[in-house]
Amino acid sequence: MSTGRVGPGDGEIFTRFDVVDLRFPTSAQLDGSDAMNPDPDYSLAYVAVHTSEGDSGYGFVFTIGRGTEVAVAAVRAVEELVAGLSVPDVLADMGFFSRLLVQDSQLRWLGPESGVMHMAIGAVINAVWDLAARRAGKPLWKLLADMSPAELVSLVDFRHIRDAITPDEALALLTDAQAAKPQRERALLRDGLPAYTTSAGWLGYSDEKVQRLIREALADGFGHLKLKVGVDIDDDERRVAMVRELIGPDVLLSVDSNQIWEVADAIENINRLAAHGVYWAEEPVNPADVLGHRAVAQAVTPVRVATGEHVANRVVFKQLLASGAIGVCQIDACRVAGVNENLAIMLMAAKYGVPVCPHAGGVGLCEVVQHLPMFDYVALGGEHGGRWIEYVDHLHEHFVDPVIVRGGRYRAPTAAGSSSELRAEAIQTYEHRPVAEGAEV
Amino acid sequence: MSTGRVGPGDGEIFTRFDVVDLRFPTSAQLDGSDAMNPDPDYSLAYVAVHTSEGDSGYGFVFTIGRGTEVAVAAVRAVEELVAGLSVPDVLADMGFFSRLLVQDSQLRWLGPESGVMHMAIGAVINAVWDLAARRAGKPLWKLLADMSPAELVSLVDFRHIRDAITPDEALALLTDAQAAKPQRERALLRDGLPAYTTSAGWLGYSDEKVQRLIREALADGFGHLKLKVGVDIDDDERRVAMVRELIGPDVLLSVDSNQIWEVADAIENINRLAAHGVYWAEEPVNPADVLGHRAVAQAVTPVRVATGEHVANRVVFKQLLASGAIGVCQIDACRVAGVNENLAIMLMAAKYGVPVCPHAGGVGLCEVVQHLPMFDYVALGGEHGGRWIEYVDHLHEHFVDPVIVRGGRYRAPTAAGSSSELRAEAIQTYEHRPVAEGAEV
Repeated sequence: MSTGRVGPGDGEIFTRFDVVDLRFPTSAQLDGSDAMNPDPDYSLAYVAVHTSEGDSGYGFVFTIGRGTEVAVAAVRAVEELVAGLSVPDVLADMGFFSRLLVQDSQLRWLGPESGVMHMAIGAVINAVWDLAARRAGKPLWKLLADMSPAELVSLVDFRHIRDAITPDEALALLTDAQAAKPQRERALLRDGLPAYTTSAGWLGYSDEKVQRLIREALADGFGHLKLKVGVDIDDDERRVAMVRELIGPDVLLSVDSNQIWEVADAIENINRLAAHGVYWAEEPVNPADVLGHRAVAQAVTPVRVATGEHVANRVVFKQLLASGAIGVCQIDACRVAGVNENLAIMLMAAKYGVPVCPHAGGVGLCEVVQHLPMFDYVALGGEHGGRWIEYVDHLHEHFVDPVIVRGGRYRAPTAAGSSSELRAEAIQTYEHRPVAEGAEV
Repeated sequence: MSTGRVGPGDGEIFTRFDVVDLRFPTSAQLDGSDAMNPDPDYSLAYVAVHTSEGDSGYGFVFTIGRGTEVAVAAVRAVEELVAGLSVPDVLADMGFFSRLLVQDSQLRWLGPESGVMHMAIGAVINAVWDLAARRAGKPLWKLLADMSPAELVSLVDFRHIRDAITPDEALALLTDAQAAKPQRERALLRDGLPAYTTSAGWLGYSDEKVQRLIREALADGFGHLKLKVGVDIDDDERRVAMVRELIGPDVLLSVDSNQIWEVADAIENINRLAAHGVYWAEEPVNPADVLGHRAVAQAVTPVRVATGEHVANRVVFKQLLASGAIGVCQIDACRVAGVNENLAIMLMAAKYGVPVCPHAGGVGLCEVVQHLPMFDYVALGGEHGGRWIEYVDHLHEHFVDPVIVRGGRYRAPTAAGSSSELRAEAIQTYEHRPVAEGAEV
């Protein structure tokens, strides 16, 4: 492959990856159960990129069980493009590197720019960003926030989104945010960013467990809770009413139906639940249904429509944002092509005035995604209202630099990197070893 | 997995699959070269499903080289859900079977319903349809055309498309087509369906080669040709003008830019080429860009906008069809979840009055996809104008039952099955054997 700008060098090069299939048996407790996903086993295709000088960075594809081995194979396919490239060249032009992977025509056929191949490209891009942040001695959010507007614009692939945002517009948005950066960085380090919790509201939990967890969340200082809905609207309404009574009128309550509804059902059901005070309605319909989201959004105002964790790429986000189909932009660290594509999405969200409220939870999603809204707060979207980062209180113990959520707020990480590295014990304990080919199952 | 309707039986069951990675070195001649895909090596993750009684069916994921091993891994992930199921139960309810695979929540996370995981599910569904048609002793098009409207409706997953088409509407469309079926079947067997050819127009071909191939195509009776464009608009216009001069005013000429343009460029460029008489403009922008397609369609009338080969699923097709964003619906045999999802798409196309003109070419795409427009012609969409099936004249010799295109028309296959079976020699010759892990490359 001849790229002209990033190629094999005489100096430090990327060597072969380590990729492991890790599965956490979360379905046993119905943690993470929702209308679309009744029994997730949170899993990772976890990748370590290495350099010939012995340096490493970490990233992952997040899955919910079966098929993690497909994500491993997809990461291995990306390895073919990366092994042998010059590390200094790549780190000096991460925009070019990300386009090299995303625009590889043969791998792109397996998406295009969607599904597990795109997620694997994202995992590798994120791993190289982790390496970059470690080398810079900064947490990822600060590495990004310290970049100049021009450097940040160079990271973005504007292909197929120029009708929504041009490089010049992006530059202007970032430049406008420069003056307030020092003050916002101090505020971030002092106060963190507000979190909301989904831990209390899984569909498989009993009323008693939900009530207990909500009391704990209120005591912990959370001002925004989310409840899973979507299996039975009568029961949904009963549970929403129960929770509203428990939390009083001032705590925000959002609902998430995880794509289970048709467009007409979504409109009817959200308007019914809205009687109990709903802040946002998440994934009301299929994540590829831009026009469906827009129809729902127009019919359920003032309830905001939120989506993003399953939105394939910047092109679908472009349409959702530019057409007013969503009022909450839920980026995910592991669905799109890594930091670079999320930067494109955050720039469009800033242009269209839609708050970025990341999806998190699973395993490791909170750790990695927190850096993006922190960058956004400091250097782009600033202090608009309605900024919330999802928090789910499990599996953080497996990370070297776990998230710190205190008083209902994410505290800014200060360690170098993107918080993506797993502890060695976690890898040893949860590595999935498939039954050998041909064995009786 | 407890399905209630399709489960392990005491009788005939599905056993383990054979899956092979086949790569044809097409890039050497620049066959298939276009603006987005300069050097495709047409490839297949080819799957044979087997039963405990020794019966088999064949299907495949089509790719363009690198990453075919990811498609193989994805097919293996589907195997876990299929091996052990009762064959009679599956064949008696193919709608349920297809939903069992598409709605598997853990595998769905790897899409959702998009990318290589969805394509692998499609390959397995198609392979089981091949088995079903072989057992029935009919070509696939006739197996489908002989089904009752109610049986056909039961095949469709209406999830997330009910705002565009209901089961009752689908039933009415199919019922309305019943009376003309015998006459249309006779016409199909006598005349076949019109083809258009892309063989002459690859971007990597010299003017001389294009001219020679176009003369051959005209001599062969083709009334519709397609030219690849998109790298340089001045050269595109020169080539379109050259071809128009060669073919005269009456032969249809379409152009295909393979997603390379931004929305504004697409509008400007298509309107420029339209001066030379362009029938349709294919993949003008990103395939996920519903609103972009609609903007282009509104600005380039009377040129029709065509897309579909990279459209992930029925939900994106729903929006393209219902919003008037496309005037030509290009289903692909191997992108969506097989025969069942293509039936959903053809039903929506029929409702919105958009002709179904399948994408084909590659390796095996012509063989498998031809059955769908033939079914559509006989039992659904009928004799509306503008029905064309893409034809590319290569790699057919590797199939047991290759397509027959004569006088510029696809002739209806009469052998039992879906024409998907490869010859044993092809598998032996083109099986891809990767370099061993850890070896120097």
